[in-house]
Amino acid sequence: MRDVAVLGIGLIKWGELWEKSLRTMFAEAALNAIKDAGVDHIDSMYVGCMSSGLFVGQEHLAALCADYLGMGPVPATRVESACASGGVAMKAGYIEVASGMSDIVLVGGVEKMTDVDGSGATSALAGAADVEYEFYNGVTFPGLYAMMARAHMQKYGTTRRQLAAVPVKSHDNGLLNPHAQYQMKITIDQVIGAVKVADPLTILDCSPITDGAAAVILCPLEMAKKISKKPAVKITGIGHATDTIALHQRRDVAWLDAAEKSAKAAYKMAGRKPSDINLCEVHDCFSISEIMAIEALGLVEPGKGGPASEAGETAIGGRIPINTSGGLKSKGHPVGATGVAQICEVTAQLRGEAGQRQVKGARCGMTQNMGGTCASSVVHILEVA
Amino acid sequence: MRDVAVLGIGLIKWGELWEKSLRTMFAEAALNAIKDAGVDHIDSMYVGCMSSGLFVGQEHLAALCADYLGMGPVPATRVESACASGGVAMKAGYIEVASGMSDIVLVGGVEKMTDVDGSGATSALAGAADVEYEFYNGVTFPGLYAMMARAHMQKYGTTRRQLAAVPVKSHDNGLLNPHAQYQMKITIDQVIGAVKVADPLTILDCSPITDGAAAVILCPLEMAKKISKKPAVKITGIGHATDTIALHQRRDVAWLDAAEKSAKAAYKMAGRKPSDINLCEVHDCFSISEIMAIEALGLVEPGKGGPASEAGETAIGGRIPINTSGGLKSKGHPVGATGVAQICEVTAQLRGEAGQRQVKGARCGMTQNMGGTCASSVVHILEVA
Repeated sequence: MRDVAVLGIGLIKWGELWEKSLRTMFAEAALNAIKDAGVDHIDSMYVGCMSSGLFVGQEHLAALCADYLGMGPVPATRVESACASGGVAMKAGYIEVASGMSDIVLVGGVEKMTDVDGSGATSALAGAADVEYEFYNGVTFPGLYAMMARAHMQKYGTTRRQLAAVPVKSHDNGLLNPHAQYQMKITIDQVIGAVKVADPLTILDCSPITDGAAAVILCPLEMAKKISKKPAVKITGIGHATDTIALHQRRDVAWLDAAEKSAKAAYKMAGRKPSDINLCEVHDCFSISEIMAIEALGLVEPGKGGPASEAGETAIGGRIPINTSGGLKSKGHPVGATGVAQICEVTAQLRGEAGQRQVKGARCGMTQNMGGTCASSVVHILEVA
Repeated sequence: MRDVAVLGIGLIKWGELWEKSLRTMFAEAALNAIKDAGVDHIDSMYVGCMSSGLFVGQEHLAALCADYLGMGPVPATRVESACASGGVAMKAGYIEVASGMSDIVLVGGVEKMTDVDGSGATSALAGAADVEYEFYNGVTFPGLYAMMARAHMQKYGTTRRQLAAVPVKSHDNGLLNPHAQYQMKITIDQVIGAVKVADPLTILDCSPITDGAAAVILCPLEMAKKISKKPAVKITGIGHATDTIALHQRRDVAWLDAAEKSAKAAYKMAGRKPSDINLCEVHDCFSISEIMAIEALGLVEPGKGGPASEAGETAIGGRIPINTSGGLKSKGHPVGATGVAQICEVTAQLRGEAGQRQVKGARCGMTQNMGGTCASSVVHILEVA
């Protein structure tokens, strides 16, 4: 397999983008990535999207995106794995370049979640759970993650203040990210005192509903070194694992097995260990998700995600900066785009282009993107080549 | 890239399967493929499905299928390209094996189209068109293909009887296929006299709404030769192309550009030409689709699809047998499963296992699977290795 590099990255400002359709957002992010990469064509493209069907009634999404981008007749494939759709799109693009099937591959992620048809975002998002066994019985994602939070608090002694430290740090970082949806400072007391969504989670523990898109251009590493004057960023490890889709069937609801397995596979492929990672973007759809993710990735000891967050270990300048972009909480969470945007952030950091969010001397970064209650997890390791 | 073989195939009887859920159908087909392949594990899986979201409210489909199949924690990815979802799943599985990323990959396709939520199958299927420019203005797929049929009749002189010859032949073949949804003989007069759906197409020109699943196991060719006593079937060519998603933007609505481009790419990769093909499964979602597909694939001259069909050239025993399985018309069209089932049929033919449908001496077969009005097309060439 050939070495694969991230040649270009493209984002747009995320938010409630009432004036932009799904296809418009996708094209803007893709054109930004193409411009950043400095290429004049692509050979193939992948689009990560969770549910353009339930949100806006549109399927056949990759062909639509290729058409609107003016890239037809290139092969275009949509991939879906709920909120990990961006991560699996990255993996698909990586394999296509690594195999030699294509040289220059566009990987985009997109989701239009406001201004939508049907029964609304909560019910569309519930499609990421086991609809027949979970959603039909009344539980949606805040409820599922609240149960995971309660289990974690009981097993490890994680406190309400520790949970709240996560979104406070995310918003501190998001304030420094011009693409973030919610650029505002929040406090621990504000998080704890905010309107309750599902005990113990308040609205400030929950990632928002977001319209957005992100894109990257992948190519063989040797080609990237020839084309671009920017530091070459190589994808050195990929891991992808699944778990039972229904939470009640898990071995331990206070632990993310699929995140651990996907991370171990990525570390093995890259020849790396947790202490080699300089920064990591994890899937903080709720405060508890970030705590459980950093434990599963081995970046903190089991049960120590809460104390580490409260102690500032995960802040920019801390021992292991997590979600320098602002994470899903502050940057926003257009579900299909999230996994691709994580790659954009880590690439920007490894290039030294992250401005006020820059992690000094970053050489090795990681992303973790998950679907549902971590029934899917995709981990990427990226390094300055 | 490594050579890739089809090691196992799995089908179930298709139809209105009121007693089977999406996950049940998928698992049955997958287990049939695993049994046929004689393997005791898989390394990775892909699921082609157009719209489990709009049909049954379920996304995160590949993780669900892996879980219900008892295959977690294997990596599992859903791919979507409307009615070509099965074809793009095949391509994704091929690339994963060819790259060396995985050895044994399950590729499944599934769609649950009856007993569904929401506004029904026609509106879900309209998601394969450009929803904003086509469906919102009132046109659905029978209308789109009817316009293509009218254009073809005008440009090439294709007759109503020639169109009708296609489903008559499909049902003749489907009568010999125990998995087919509609095993019944029909006549040209019955097709022409049936209830009109969109002039000139009657209900017997249209593929049905179907519940169904199909699966194959892929592995490196060398491994297949060691594991299996059956003839090794190698994937020698793959082509994938897109076109404008909206029909009104096409260069020529009486020609399938994406089918032609995808076929040319597949012929080039395989080092084959149309006259090398012994049989072909094409995407006959409507009578006109088969006529236009065989022209675009170069199996008949442009404009000669109608006369060739009427003359019996595409029947079993004819010059170039098309849709020996019964095609989408008789076998059924569970949209996400169709592209995978086409591979099952061609593999069975190349193995000499097609029973009464057997094309004598078949050594090289082809499949063509398309999405929308051919805004996506995926072509595979398979050969006895």
